[in-house]
Amino acid sequence: MLSPLIDQLIRSLRILPGVGPKSAQRMALYLLERNREGAVALAQALANAAEHVKHCVSCRTLTEQNQCSICANSRRDCSLLCVVESPADIFAVEHSASYSGKYFVLHGRLSPIDGIGPAELGMDKLLQRLEGVAEVIVATNPTVEGEATAHYIAEKAKRLGIKVTRIAHGVPIGGELEYIDGGTLAHALTSRREL
Amino acid sequence: MLSPLIDQLIRSLRILPGVGPKSAQRMALYLLERNREGAVALAQALANAAEHVKHCVSCRTLTEQNQCSICANSRRDCSLLCVVESPADIFAVEHSASYSGKYFVLHGRLSPIDGIGPAELGMDKLLQRLEGVAEVIVATNPTVEGEATAHYIAEKAKRLGIKVTRIAHGVPIGGELEYIDGGTLAHALTSRREL
Repeated sequence: MLSPLIDQLIRSLRILPGVGPKSAQRMALYLLERNREGAVALAQALANAAEHVKHCVSCRTLTEQNQCSICANSRRDCSLLCVVESPADIFAVEHSASYSGKYFVLHGRLSPIDGIGPAELGMDKLLQRLEGVAEVIVATNPTVEGEATAHYIAEKAKRLGIKVTRIAHGVPIGGELEYIDGGTLAHALTSRREL
Repeated sequence: MLSPLIDQLIRSLRILPGVGPKSAQRMALYLLERNREGAVALAQALANAAEHVKHCVSCRTLTEQNQCSICANSRRDCSLLCVVESPADIFAVEHSASYSGKYFVLHGRLSPIDGIGPAELGMDKLLQRLEGVAEVIVATNPTVEGEATAHYIAEKAKRLGIKVTRIAHGVPIGGELEYIDGGTLAHALTSRREL
């Protein structure tokens, strides 16, 4: 019933995360009926980004430049290095406007069962990057793999005599104890601080 | 903080219906980190569809062919014509597998306040299309504008001596009276049928 090109467009849109068959159909018809210019611009943006975006040579985040804007910014503190799992984590930390150091992106976490070891996460590159760094802040996610990755990095950095810290985990600001899961609350209790 | 190409991609993705800043960022990073081939294929599909998809000469639905597959299908009943507001409505009716006639797409509904009159909806084309049709089924949406459009079409078709019907409106199958809005229930009562 659908013409081949529209069918192809709907199937292509379904690769986007969170887009099912209904949303994909709605998107395709919206673009074709009401926003062809937008469709052409989106096609161009996708093609450009897919062709030119690569990894920053220093921190491994996504950028089309050789070095990303954070690594290239001389006003950022070179003695602090925040290690994250993905470029999206950098956006989240930057959005909090509470960090002025540099970053390193692992593009994953240690997960031997999926064949992801230290080599796949660029650990050798991270160790090179530690030169001149006073403190490594490990901001991997608080999952089993994220914790294992944090411990691995801590061990390596400590051996080089570098201070290693982990971001705090506990009750989110604005959260209510009543609705917090047990695991988080247990962690918040064991990690309590003196007032 | 974001490189220009990634920023451009995120802004382009935001034109899609239902996609806000967070989803657009997630989509962009997913495509760049894990599915570049998909991104290239999507760019191609968008460019192709935006360039080649036009309106079917008979029913005005979206297709890259001169005539869509439904209009070109000689096994479909030419004496039945279902008038709908958008191509998405054709997909919905086809999905119900309960109609074997042909279609006509208005691409909107009468709405003088928005400057949409009979000319914008291709009413002259619809009247030409009525030749040889025994029954017109008006399947515009049950909104004020949709009803006005239905009445306009009914008047024109009746003048040509063609039977005009409207799809039934009432309690949806599987719906519970308790949760149906008053307007629908009022309509279901006035349109009651003898058993």
